[in-house]
Amino acid sequence: MKHLTSINDLTRDDALSILELATEMHDVQNREVKKLPALRGRTIINLFFEDSTRTRSSFELAAKWLSADSINISAKGSSVSKGESLRDTLLTLDAMGIDAIVMRHAGSGSVHQARGWVRASMINAGDGTHEHPTQALLDAYSMGTDLEGKLVSITGDLLHSRVVRSNVLLLEKLGAKVVLVAPPTLMPPGVEHWAAEISHDFDAVLPDVDVCMMLRVQRERMQGGFFPSEREYIALYGLTPSRLARLKPDAKIAHPGPMNRGLEISSSAADDARSIVLNQVSAGVAVRMSVLYHLLAGES
Amino acid sequence: MKHLTSINDLTRDDALSILELATEMHDVQNREVKKLPALRGRTIINLFFEDSTRTRSSFELAAKWLSADSINISAKGSSVSKGESLRDTLLTLDAMGIDAIVMRHAGSGSVHQARGWVRASMINAGDGTHEHPTQALLDAYSMGTDLEGKLVSITGDLLHSRVVRSNVLLLEKLGAKVVLVAPPTLMPPGVEHWAAEISHDFDAVLPDVDVCMMLRVQRERMQGGFFPSEREYIALYGLTPSRLARLKPDAKIAHPGPMNRGLEISSSAADDARSIVLNQVSAGVAVRMSVLYHLLAGES
Amino acid sequence: MKHLTSINDLTRDDALSILELATEMHDVQNREVKKLPALRGRTIINLFFEDSTRTRSSFELAAKWLSADSINISAKGSSVSKGESLRDTLLTLDAMGIDAIVMRHAGSGSVHQARGWVRASMINAGDGTHEHPTQALLDAYSMGTDLEGKLVSITGDLLHSRVVRSNVLLLEKLGAKVVLVAPPTLMPPGVEHWAAEISHDFDAVLPDVDVCMMLRVQRERMQGGFFPSEREYIALYGLTPSRLARLKPDAKIAHPGPMNRGLEISSSAADDARSIVLNQVSAGVAVRMSVLYHLLAGES
Repeated sequence: MKHLTSINDLTRDDALSILELATEMHDVQNREVKKLPALRGRTIINLFFEDSTRTRSSFELAAKWLSADSINISAKGSSVSKGESLRDTLLTLDAMGIDAIVMRHAGSGSVHQARGWVRASMINAGDGTHEHPTQALLDAYSMGTDLEGKLVSITGDLLHSRVVRSNVLLLEKLGAKVVLVAPPTLMPPGVEHWAAEISHDFDAVLPDVDVCMMLRVQRERMQGGFFPSEREYIALYGLTPSRLARLKPDAKIAHPGPMNRGLEISSSAADDARSIVLNQVSAGVAVRMSVLYHLLAGES
Repeated sequence: MKHLTSINDLTRDDALSILELATEMHDVQNREVKKLPALRGRTIINLFFEDSTRTRSSFELAAKWLSADSINISAKGSSVSKGESLRDTLLTLDAMGIDAIVMRHAGSGSVHQARGWVRASMINAGDGTHEHPTQALLDAYSMGTDLEGKLVSITGDLLHSRVVRSNVLLLEKLGAKVVLVAPPTLMPPGVEHWAAEISHDFDAVLPDVDVCMMLRVQRERMQGGFFPSEREYIALYGLTPSRLARLKPDAKIAHPGPMNRGLEISSSAADDARSIVLNQVSAGVAVRMSVLYHLLAGES
Repeated sequence: MKHLTSINDLTRDDALSILELATEMHDVQNREVKKLPALRGRTIINLFFEDSTRTRSSFELAAKWLSADSINISAKGSSVSKGESLRDTLLTLDAMGIDAIVMRHAGSGSVHQARGWVRASMINAGDGTHEHPTQALLDAYSMGTDLEGKLVSITGDLLHSRVVRSNVLLLEKLGAKVVLVAPPTLMPPGVEHWAAEISHDFDAVLPDVDVCMMLRVQRERMQGGFFPSEREYIALYGLTPSRLARLKPDAKIAHPGPMNRGLEISSSAADDARSIVLNQVSAGVAVRMSVLYHLLAGES
């Protein structure tokens, strides 16, 4: 395994191997002294062309706890603002002699494209609305060890989401069944070809799901006539207290964050005993430690 | 000691213990090779919702010299801009498995409130105009070992200061007597209940003080009719060369910085042999090393 | 050697010693595990008042690979925005007990001036349009080991360049001959006193050069009547495909980046086999490791 730019880079066995090592990394992460020498002397650049707190921090901690060196570059304050091309920026960083570039960029496919330019490993931390594979891995990790035959609903603004496609690809690979729930205007183009069911009726789906994943909606989008109003949206697609009551007792509630409490998810749902929202965050560091280990710890 | 969000978290003995260890840390800081293994494997997040150079850098160096891992998050570029609540931001960071959060935030009481949300230690690096306890500790450290019976004046824009309250609380705990000097419009509300004298007459106070602490005033505030003009302010409350001449020969001149030379403090005062301004900065790292050690080095 | 603020700080032997150690550092940089203990316990502050990706990253990697601690401060988010003087900012950082300050600042001479204020070593990472000595060192490094008698042309917006003066000083010290090529309006003031030839005719110079260094031009400057238009500029001073064909077969093409492909340099030139653009970036880390070692590894 050299790069991780899409879930399609992974066989089912690769994915299972990453998730398995993640449980060991989770133990390290939960120790008082979290430090493994595994990646000492390796260097990782976090190159973020778009803002991020949790993903960047999570990768940064993963690198540090594996004793790698890491440096952060954000688009503001970078040569990019001086008109340098993305290819030249990446060639420049690569020429410094680093081992991996964790990249978030607005352009769908940009991280994959970069694989052809650099010697370093490329890790996709979100390329536009395309993929965010480590998020899908941590989501799967926090859903539990055996997803075979489980039903997972993903509800929300799927059109602008960077996680939905990676989740569908991975969950299907792991044997789960996915149903995508959103108004027609918030469905991604081409979704009919994905390995997922499509529904516009959250209430019909709700009672059967094993995992109910809610995705963030942007309040800004709830203005024009094209999208539903905030009030309509909550009425049809929000995980409200009354919908919460209709979830199975052992269902899990997931949300990749940041949450809009009171919009796509009510506070009672976010803080419910079935919520795995904080488990997802915690799993994020362990899964990223596992990914970095898989990509960089090879025979040196 | 688990958190440090207010000087009220500390007994007199706690404070003395921090100051005592700080002298040992100061020795480390003054070595060529400054590195102790004490906090190896511990992780500290510097979470700054407002700009800061000296406080953030000082905490970052303190963490590094104790071999802790630390990462920086500034409000710009954070999920906060995406409308996530402060509680969710903190729960998210906490879930990653970190040991302490050093936080600066505009909301008075926000850092204290966060103690109820997270497992990590919370350290207040300035919450609005409320408290800044490590600044008070470093101020006391640089004023000298025995403050019993000493007279400390604090002069300047007390209304908008984040350090005055912490200083009054700590100095009183250490046996010093404090007199607050400012025009009535720049006094904090409720100051009459603090353990400090109040004066509007800097010249009357000046000849008796053992430590003359000057606080920054914002030039921006010197515009409206509510506050004095810049010229009036200097005439009444500035540490001008003529006032400098009336200070006791062994008095100390303190300023937490950044200084407005020529406004609250003249250059001759800032650079006087009695000035401890740079000692304060130097003490800042040692005191923060001591605080981190007290909070995080526990039996692991 | 205590500071590096200008190439004039270096004797010819100093420069050769830095370049020689850089070749050893380059070996370290090309290893899988790049980590030397040489500067363990030393602390470096990267203080950037202007944006930079490559220079800041390069210094940060150099510090990490030598096991030094380093922290970054950018002007935004610093006390400077609160009106503190540059001298007070530097005195403050110095008082924390750090070993070196790598500084970029808009003011020509500002880094040199700072030497009089601080105990730390000052390293100039670009002071306005004045000097950028580590850039000149890495340029020389990537031009090859023996520059005696070599002809180097430097073509482009010399007026706004922070690298041209350092390059002329260093190349002359190393025995190379330099010719500066630009329209009269883009020549630096006083250039007639520099140890370099001056030409306005790129085509006349081109066939003889051993190294053809191109400097970035800002598209923004190509608007008014004072400067040539973009089209005129390319016609007279761009390294176009047809000019590329007239370069000697063993000439080298250099550019400190970021490049404006299609303006001062064509893509065919940037990607030509004779281009050393990426070698320059790679050399940047090795040369900075060598500089940090020379300044900070002294008998401790």
